[in-house]
Amino acid sequence: MSRRIALRIAYDGTNYAGWQTQSNATAVQEVVEKALQKLEKAEGKVNLTGASRTDAGVHALGQTAHFDTDSRIPAEKYSYALNTLLPPDIRIQQSMEVAPDFHARFSTAGKVYAYTIRNAPHASPLMSRYAMHVPVPLDAEKMHRAVQDVVGKHDFSAFMASGGTSKDFVREMKAAQVNVSGSQICFMIWGTGFLYNMVRIMAGTLILIGQDKLPEDAFSRAIASGNRLDLGVTAEPQGLTLMRVLYPGQEDEAKAILSSKFLFS
Amino acid sequence: MSRRIALRIAYDGTNYAGWQTQSNATAVQEVVEKALQKLEKAEGKVNLTGASRTDAGVHALGQTAHFDTDSRIPAEKYSYALNTLLPPDIRIQQSMEVAPDFHARFSTAGKVYAYTIRNAPHASPLMSRYAMHVPVPLDAEKMHRAVQDVVGKHDFSAFMASGGTSKDFVREMKAAQVNVSGSQICFMIWGTGFLYNMVRIMAGTLILIGQDKLPEDAFSRAIASGNRLDLGVTAEPQGLTLMRVLYPGQEDEAKAILSSKFLFS
Repeated sequence: MSRRIALRIAYDGTNYAGWQTQSNATAVQEVVEKALQKLEKAEGKVNLTGASRTDAGVHALGQTAHFDTDSRIPAEKYSYALNTLLPPDIRIQQSMEVAPDFHARFSTAGKVYAYTIRNAPHASPLMSRYAMHVPVPLDAEKMHRAVQDVVGKHDFSAFMASGGTSKDFVREMKAAQVNVSGSQICFMIWGTGFLYNMVRIMAGTLILIGQDKLPEDAFSRAIASGNRLDLGVTAEPQGLTLMRVLYPGQEDEAKAILSSKFLFS
Repeated sequence: MSRRIALRIAYDGTNYAGWQTQSNATAVQEVVEKALQKLEKAEGKVNLTGASRTDAGVHALGQTAHFDTDSRIPAEKYSYALNTLLPPDIRIQQSMEVAPDFHARFSTAGKVYAYTIRNAPHASPLMSRYAMHVPVPLDAEKMHRAVQDVVGKHDFSAFMASGGTSKDFVREMKAAQVNVSGSQICFMIWGTGFLYNMVRIMAGTLILIGQDKLPEDAFSRAIASGNRLDLGVTAEPQGLTLMRVLYPGQEDEAKAILSSKFLFS
């Protein structure tokens, strides 16, 4: 009997073209699919459906994907078995059987992202893969106040890069915060859904607000105007990490991640 | 007139044979020396003297090194100029003129190290370069209590790997702590001096104490016995980071690092 298995996947996106299979570059999805095919000794390709199409260079601690299988491998063993076949920059964190109608993308109730900034005169070799370096001093408290304006249900037409396919621009942000520890500033956001490049546009805007190059009410203005030019440039991909994909009833997990405040905790 | 310049250097040790120049593999010292030679348009090699000989794969956020120069480059400009010549896994954090009798190694008053453990069933691709993965659950509170036994002035003969050149085994540990945040356990230690592989032996011992494979008083026993076999195996290099080399009067910097509790802060 066929079962549906869900995987929670972490990856360092540095060396990948993103989650989704592209024509000319290696995608994370493809690497996990090949490991699955090998594990299941499948004749053809095993199709993996991911929740979120992360861009090239973007990381994940909690991407979710599902696949169907006729194998007898216990669901919780998939994580261990796949990890022996995967490169060290991809690691399955959890595997479990889900209901046949569970869908990694369509069942989603929300996502939590973290965007990390290294705010110091010089870059840190230990953070450079996972943070954007901003040498100018940033006012993190002001950034935290400013980003509260995105919380709630708004039309986020201004918060989207060209290339997005959405036609409905209303999204709900449940919580947003900016925390600082030493030279590390971490922007975390929990929303029910996001537009293309939305978190990186928010991060780029916060970086300008934090140095007084955009007003503290820039987000409100952009929500009202719908004009992309009222916001900052899209921040670099390597600062972004998909922390978790949420499914109905998992609000507590979002709260726990936000209370951890930083990427590495 | 010749001036002496001190550099505070951060590096990701993953791709290096350690700080010191070896015969057959690239060392961090060598890479910085070549950048200095290029910057100063020096005919011969510029000699850089480092405070601490970190091993292959070990990282640093605060290695210190000094060199002498006849150039007119302002001391504080060296960090910016060198960083344009260095690979991204090495970054000068600070450069300053010091007294002619300052010596990066002989003037040292102490060092602070961090050892990071990923304590979760599966490794994290985002931590794997900077943490040792321990899948068995560890009791971090017990580890914190146990490591207090090393604080003070003791004969640490048992805490040294073969290959060390020291003849005096008395060292003073000023403070030691083990903190936990999510799946991350960070052991930090501040001492006036360390023996060869001492921090990694302490970390390896803590990992065994944390799973009840060594008694909570293992450190006291080993201090009393002087027997290396009373301690655990040397922990993996990638978990270790030299946080700071301290010079006289810099106790407050050590306290600030310890209060930050984790590697990334």
